[in-house]
Amino acid sequence: MSDVLEQLTTTLAARRQADPEHSYVASLHHRGLNKILEKVGEEATEVILAAKDAEQGSDRDAVIGEVADLWFHTMVMLSHLELDAQQVLVRLSERFGVSGLEEKAERDAQGS
Amino acid sequence: MSDVLEQLTTTLAARRQADPEHSYVASLHHRGLNKILEKVGEEATEVILAAKDAEQGSDRDAVIGEVADLWFHTMVMLSHLELDAQQVLVRLSERFGVSGLEEKAERDAQGS
Amino acid sequence: MSDVLEQLTTTLAARRQADPEHSYVASLHHRGLNKILEKVGEEATEVILAAKDAEQGSDRDAVIGEVADLWFHTMVMLSHLELDAQQVLVRLSERFGVSGLEEKAERDAQGS
Amino acid sequence: MSDVLEQLTTTLAARRQADPEHSYVASLHHRGLNKILEKVGEEATEVILAAKDAEQGSDRDAVIGEVADLWFHTMVMLSHLELDAQQVLVRLSERFGVSGLEEKAERDAQGS
Repeated sequence: MSDVLEQLTTTLAARRQADPEHSYVASLHHRGLNKILEKVGEEATEVILAAKDAEQGSDRDAVIGEVADLWFHTMVMLSHLELDAQQVLVRLSERFGVSGLEEKAERDAQGS
Repeated sequence: MSDVLEQLTTTLAARRQADPEHSYVASLHHRGLNKILEKVGEEATEVILAAKDAEQGSDRDAVIGEVADLWFHTMVMLSHLELDAQQVLVRLSERFGVSGLEEKAERDAQGS
Repeated sequence: MSDVLEQLTTTLAARRQADPEHSYVASLHHRGLNKILEKVGEEATEVILAAKDAEQGSDRDAVIGEVADLWFHTMVMLSHLELDAQQVLVRLSERFGVSGLEEKAERDAQGS
Repeated sequence: MSDVLEQLTTTLAARRQADPEHSYVASLHHRGLNKILEKVGEEATEVILAAKDAEQGSDRDAVIGEVADLWFHTMVMLSHLELDAQQVLVRLSERFGVSGLEEKAERDAQGS
């Protein structure tokens, strides 16, 4: 796995046990799955807005920051459900290789 | 970068130039940024639904699949804007190291 | 209640019992709550995209159409849960009168 | 139009000119379209979460509150773009009468 995602996975697991008063990640776990999913929804919206602004010439760097926030909060969600990014990378590898992309195109063309 | 994300970035760049009739990725680029962002929004919703179902005992494997779809479509969006996952990983590394997490917790506590 | 929302509520209730092969509403109920919520998420994304395009001078009429789709699918969801738009209007009336707006502003200022 | 939606439309128009320090609605307009659309995205996510919880037996009253919040913020967005709920009701009336529902079912079946 990516060194970054691997290190972040380890950090997130440790933070889950931290004091919710002092750790943002612990506070998310403490507030529960709905709060974590609200953040996922918020960050997805912010990705969309930043991308639309980039289309109009605004700083594309903001898009990078919003995607980082989105991926980060999906990783907190995975951690909350005892899952991790490594499993996502394996799935991406299985499904979106060259043949996988064709397969999905075919599936979508048939209507899903 | 992750071997998987690195390879997927390369594949996505190549697919962008493919025939929209035969490549799902090329068809997304051909239909434009709004279509790609609709997919990002759809997949974010599906992540949320799968996580809620997993909370109730449904297959957590579905969560992995939906997160893979979400990350995949954000990578197509990055590619459409001439950005890539490597930049997201660098940002994650910068912002969400141990000190970064504290900083965000502080920022959020102040209201963002 | 609005004549339009009242009539639509009645129509949606009748359609819920229709043949899923011939009624879009019946097919949504037949496919279940997740499918209905996917549509709510999709339409919310489309509202956001249409609003951003309107900000750049695109047809504001598209915004009207997307909000109509969003409200429509939230009404199908309400129907699926044995709720209806009349209850939403009552809530809007209770919460967002002049005093209600102030109350929410105060609540938000304190951080929500 | 619904008395409630008509009155809320009038209130929202008046609030748009109010002091952002003292009016929640004025503060949203002051912060701009992106902030308003972030709220639309947040409230859509909260509708989805409340509906999933209601499916599991949680208070369905929360769903009413979240839909009220979602419709409210879409009305602020409409106001920001010089549009209003009356136009949405007209569209709903045009598109989702009995014949309209069939038409959409047909359209969707062909793939949209």
